[in-house]
Amino acid sequence: MNTEQAFAIKGDICFCKTNNQWTTMENAYAVCEHGISQGVFAQLPEQYAHISVVDFTGKLIIPGLVDLHIHAPQYAFRGMGMDLELMDWLNQQTFPEEAKYADLAYADRAYTIFAENMKHSATSHACLFATQHRAATELLMDRMEQSGLVSFVGKVNMDREAPDNLRESSAETSAQETLQWLYEIAGKYQRTKPMLTPRFIPSCTPELLTKLQIIQQEYELPVQSHLSENPGEIAFVQELCPTSKFYGDAYDAYGLFGRQHPTEQTYPAIMAHCVYSTQEEIQLIKDNGVFIAHCPASNTNLSSGIAPIRRYLNEDMSVGLGSDVAGGHTESMLRAVCDAVQVSKLYWRLVDASAAPLTFCEAFYLATKGGGAFFGNVGSLEHGYDFSAVVLDDSSLQHPFALTIAQRVERAAYSALDNYGICAKFVSGTPLFDHVHSK
Amino acid sequence: MNTEQAFAIKGDICFCKTNNQWTTMENAYAVCEHGISQGVFAQLPEQYAHISVVDFTGKLIIPGLVDLHIHAPQYAFRGMGMDLELMDWLNQQTFPEEAKYADLAYADRAYTIFAENMKHSATSHACLFATQHRAATELLMDRMEQSGLVSFVGKVNMDREAPDNLRESSAETSAQETLQWLYEIAGKYQRTKPMLTPRFIPSCTPELLTKLQIIQQEYELPVQSHLSENPGEIAFVQELCPTSKFYGDAYDAYGLFGRQHPTEQTYPAIMAHCVYSTQEEIQLIKDNGVFIAHCPASNTNLSSGIAPIRRYLNEDMSVGLGSDVAGGHTESMLRAVCDAVQVSKLYWRLVDASAAPLTFCEAFYLATKGGGAFFGNVGSLEHGYDFSAVVLDDSSLQHPFALTIAQRVERAAYSALDNYGICAKFVSGTPLFDHVHSK
Repeated sequence: MNTEQAFAIKGDICFCKTNNQWTTMENAYAVCEHGISQGVFAQLPEQYAHISVVDFTGKLIIPGLVDLHIHAPQYAFRGMGMDLELMDWLNQQTFPEEAKYADLAYADRAYTIFAENMKHSATSHACLFATQHRAATELLMDRMEQSGLVSFVGKVNMDREAPDNLRESSAETSAQETLQWLYEIAGKYQRTKPMLTPRFIPSCTPELLTKLQIIQQEYELPVQSHLSENPGEIAFVQELCPTSKFYGDAYDAYGLFGRQHPTEQTYPAIMAHCVYSTQEEIQLIKDNGVFIAHCPASNTNLSSGIAPIRRYLNEDMSVGLGSDVAGGHTESMLRAVCDAVQVSKLYWRLVDASAAPLTFCEAFYLATKGGGAFFGNVGSLEHGYDFSAVVLDDSSLQHPFALTIAQRVERAAYSALDNYGICAKFVSGTPLFDHVHSK
Repeated sequence: MNTEQAFAIKGDICFCKTNNQWTTMENAYAVCEHGISQGVFAQLPEQYAHISVVDFTGKLIIPGLVDLHIHAPQYAFRGMGMDLELMDWLNQQTFPEEAKYADLAYADRAYTIFAENMKHSATSHACLFATQHRAATELLMDRMEQSGLVSFVGKVNMDREAPDNLRESSAETSAQETLQWLYEIAGKYQRTKPMLTPRFIPSCTPELLTKLQIIQQEYELPVQSHLSENPGEIAFVQELCPTSKFYGDAYDAYGLFGRQHPTEQTYPAIMAHCVYSTQEEIQLIKDNGVFIAHCPASNTNLSSGIAPIRRYLNEDMSVGLGSDVAGGHTESMLRAVCDAVQVSKLYWRLVDASAAPLTFCEAFYLATKGGGAFFGNVGSLEHGYDFSAVVLDDSSLQHPFALTIAQRVERAAYSALDNYGICAKFVSGTPLFDHVHSK
């Protein structure tokens, strides 16, 4: 063992191996070697006796959180103007802002703020939408690489149903820009990868989708998009694609809906929302191994509704959480965990009394191992997992009696502690910052 | 004018005179004299030329927020164990914790934390439940007085349907303890007042309610309690009070449901929740001038449902917001504002498409002037209002383009800025702290 490549962090450790069980250890050691977790130990094992230990005694150590769906250019108007439904919100709020990213100086200003805040958030892994602008997308990838997070970033494709200043002029242009983008970033980054990103069916002509399928197959790219978010949107898709059997079928017709063969080794697709997926659509999501990015804040803010996550869990589907900034108002993934619990309670009360609310543990699992599975062995501090961890200083949350570690994590999440209480963060073994042990 | 009794604060000022209109002024002056707002001015008027000005240039100044419903003893378990419905949550979580307040040393530890956090929150005025313990309730009132907030505090009455270690031994004991409490605190505080607090109908025998009515009339006390929060609770009330026409009628039968005569000048009652109020109950709430404390976080966390606030606003009822810690998980009233907007969107989508979602402005109004009306001229920086203000430093929320003041306030609320970004606070003209101009 090369001890220079190994270190441990010490503190009160908490993670979920399964979606109904906490693993917690007080004053314990999480050992990292070559960016991979070697496990968690009450005492440092003999073979690690000489590695350096970063001491976070008394602080909480949790896995880095995974954000499966966030729009980087929308970060600039997060938490503002939230009085509109999806389609109006897109046209009045989102599209005018995204058009600004044609200006690289503006994009630099905005994406620098975004990446800096992501760096200091509890998120270690994320899947990002950029805009359709190639140069700005590359700039975002530069900033994300500098941030130290692991991310997939998508140059958006959209050649219809958008204002002239945002719509790409043709399917051919959209495809060419995508190829040029892939060419320019090839081999450029360690932690930042491209992802095919047709905005959603209403934004993409059949011609464009056909071209994207060819690009996907050539580059073996994962795909991210939106699915069955809002009744008005679904009706619009049906109108635009009268032959599709359901919304997801409109992606699947072009091979953009997860794996086409069970043995395929490429990354599957992520579809955000799935609030109104039909039985047929759910079956196809399962069959194709599509990841569902559940975005509770966004579905609430845009009055979309509540996704039936209990059902998806019962059917053993792949589910993670997304902040969906700026439909969601914050990049805080601990907030997303609480939001997932909260909306599941309202779903139980108002929609389906047979759908038991999510427990906090289940929602925490979704935000770690659930979404982490998209990236591989991510979202846990178990042996063999990517070593990503967030250190939370919850000493500002005073308490008149002693708490368990699991109680402290729940309280930290509900108290929005990740907005101000993150004191260190490690992603794939690299410390991004450390407010406690500054050098 | 005595200039020693007057001062101004300068900054970017924002408040609501009505529930659909912001008043915002950049670099403006809010003038306080003898604890009362003299209004807001772009330039300091001649007669105030020589008063001291506290300079918060670039920071947001909003009215202090009003929390119409919060349980001080439950603060100790805020944001934890939120996987239960109301009645189970009371029996498994709340009652065991509240029983601890028989121990004054424990109460001191817990209430000191509570009051310190309330002092640093965005709340200027609050209505608090204590427990049934007289000594601990007085200790809470001491701590609240020291905090500088204006508050009503209630010793809880409960003589049935609770564990032996929490239930008062008889109606007579409960009433006697209440009288002793009122005797001991009479004239003791400037900013802290007593409020009659029957926990809720299931906790109070008819005998106790009869005695409380007598106490209320003698002391002209306002009343606070819970109403129509949860279907199980409502069915239980009907079982316990088979002759009552509806839940609120069970209070009204004992005169504990707001004013009994339209000309009466005493404070009316506050009823928390009103999620499932029937038409008859709504009519009585209106007729009696009862304030509704809308507690969106609590109604979500305890899976209670969503209160029909649009309807109450359309009927011109008195509505404010409550954090309802620890059914609600945080004392943050800016969070309550956002929660009120969010659940109203889900209500529109899932329950009643004719109930337009609340705008952010409407919800902010509820948390300021709406609930403030219970205290008198409270919740605004208009001339003649109690001078309570919170100064928010939103400079940590970086932005690539210029924002209006109203946008900044909305963003601050959705970003949980009051958890860490409050740099000064004034209540009834008194500065509680000032992290910018420390002496």
